[in-house]
Amino acid sequence: MSSAEDSLIARYFKPLATDPGAFDLTDDAALVKSSADDIVVTTDAIVEGVHFLPGDPPDTVARKALRVNLSDLAAKGAEPAGFVLTLALRAVDEAWLAPFARALGEDAASFRCPLLGGDTVSTPGPLMISITAFGRVLPGRMIRRAGAEPGDRVVVTGTIGDAALGLAFLKQDAMAKALAVDDGIRETLVERYRIPQPRVALAQAVRDHATAAMDVSDGLAGDLAKLCAASGVSAIVNIPTIPLSAPLAMLIDQYYGLLELAVSGGDDYEILCTIPENRFEAFAQASKLAGVPVTSIGTVISGTSVPRFIDGQGAEMALSRHSYSHF
Amino acid sequence: MSSAEDSLIARYFKPLATDPGAFDLTDDAALVKSSADDIVVTTDAIVEGVHFLPGDPPDTVARKALRVNLSDLAAKGAEPAGFVLTLALRAVDEAWLAPFARALGEDAASFRCPLLGGDTVSTPGPLMISITAFGRVLPGRMIRRAGAEPGDRVVVTGTIGDAALGLAFLKQDAMAKALAVDDGIRETLVERYRIPQPRVALAQAVRDHATAAMDVSDGLAGDLAKLCAASGVSAIVNIPTIPLSAPLAMLIDQYYGLLELAVSGGDDYEILCTIPENRFEAFAQASKLAGVPVTSIGTVISGTSVPRFIDGQGAEMALSRHSYSHF
Repeated sequence: MSSAEDSLIARYFKPLATDPGAFDLTDDAALVKSSADDIVVTTDAIVEGVHFLPGDPPDTVARKALRVNLSDLAAKGAEPAGFVLTLALRAVDEAWLAPFARALGEDAASFRCPLLGGDTVSTPGPLMISITAFGRVLPGRMIRRAGAEPGDRVVVTGTIGDAALGLAFLKQDAMAKALAVDDGIRETLVERYRIPQPRVALAQAVRDHATAAMDVSDGLAGDLAKLCAASGVSAIVNIPTIPLSAPLAMLIDQYYGLLELAVSGGDDYEILCTIPENRFEAFAQASKLAGVPVTSIGTVISGTSVPRFIDGQGAEMALSRHSYSHF
Repeated sequence: MSSAEDSLIARYFKPLATDPGAFDLTDDAALVKSSADDIVVTTDAIVEGVHFLPGDPPDTVARKALRVNLSDLAAKGAEPAGFVLTLALRAVDEAWLAPFARALGEDAASFRCPLLGGDTVSTPGPLMISITAFGRVLPGRMIRRAGAEPGDRVVVTGTIGDAALGLAFLKQDAMAKALAVDDGIRETLVERYRIPQPRVALAQAVRDHATAAMDVSDGLAGDLAKLCAASGVSAIVNIPTIPLSAPLAMLIDQYYGLLELAVSGGDDYEILCTIPENRFEAFAQASKLAGVPVTSIGTVISGTSVPRFIDGQGAEMALSRHSYSHF
């Protein structure tokens, strides 16, 4: 006797459950084996119409659902250990589920983060994918938001703002429509929104050198403010040093207002961290070996004011909003 | 700077985050400290209109969301260690959130399962609450669905079928409407549906004595079939020994068709386990000390056929469906 729900799980998700602690998804619970490590736990959900768009390809939805969690683990200095998946579906749509599960399995394998268990439920509403991911760090070595010290450098990985502009293109908002941009660039930016690149390779450098870290998911300005608040410090960011992709830099030359979108938009999934001056060289070297570009964009200062973003003329940028909020 | 999302979390959920590993909900991740124990992980989501009804009181929704997970942990023989919460809301409705968070906090405290972290997202659709809960067992001691041996007794806790009938009353289905039942009984059965009683107190007896265990969430018949399939065995259940509450027993006397609902309906959240004959007395004694009623309802036999339910006349009950399936 097997229900449609059981066959769905056996067909699409059992192949992803490669860890012995998953028991081939035939039990009520999974097992994370005891070890000397602390277990870092993070949970992030994505909702159709909110975090992804109804027309987004199912493989990109799967990758985004897992990668936003892998991004959190990396920012905490943790190595991936596995994840559990809650999937709320309107119906069993094989044309959607097959590429979703295939892409999820590919990412689970390439980031070494196997599926451990989950729950599949029906919903009359939008699709929702909720993932809780586990990572391992040596006891006491998780990197927190708290810990930044005055004098530390403020560092980000990769480039900032591409995903926010990609989303603006997908939503066809007025500003995005007004930009002169060819299809190739548009596609590149949209892909940055749809498929984050979690900086899993940087986890070790983060835990070896960072005093505080988080991933940039709700916008650089707002997330830096959160990190500073948790650490009881402030910061100054030198806007011209914020790393921008070539297409975004070119578009900002066309329309300076995009800079605010880049700084306050979300979905970058880059790592924001603070590195003591005397460790920066070692951190930069470790990042280079890991193949992850890092850029120093400012300095932690004492105080409790909101971090200030200073442009090339020494003027402070006024931000009408700092980050994305759901409510 | 604080978003509405951050204030919602600070106001309603920070008071529940009593474990140091929750970092007062100010970080991106939580920590489950390393220990000699295996970590048992379970995840269960509930969706408005599917697992609870739009008019259900928010405090009962909170308790159900956590308790269905606690029930899984207990059935695995694990002691609660904490949980993460994903909450998908249409809006910040204080009249709903305040009693929801208060009841969740009460249950987290009384079952010693603190909130470790979570994610709050907006949705245009039904409310959804997804919880991933963690429990601890000594290494290798998690009780699985696999492990039942021919000759073991089939045992359940509490009474079976009350919640399924409670749901039938709430849905005002034709059969439920035809039953002569006073309001007090109706309320008792509805409460059994809305607020499960997870058998956390029985976790130790389960891990000390059971060869296999799971909780009854999708119906006794279907869940026993799953346990038997995972163990590579079959079973015979003696219907007259299935524990029924006094109200349900009385109603079955009125309308024998209810028996099938009791056996194949869901939401019991009782523990179903198999106990070797020579351990049954010790298990019964431990259960008594834990204050949890247990009843032996049948026997594990060899074979791979679906478990058979035999009535007082020796006839096999034909079940038109064995359990709840979402799809």
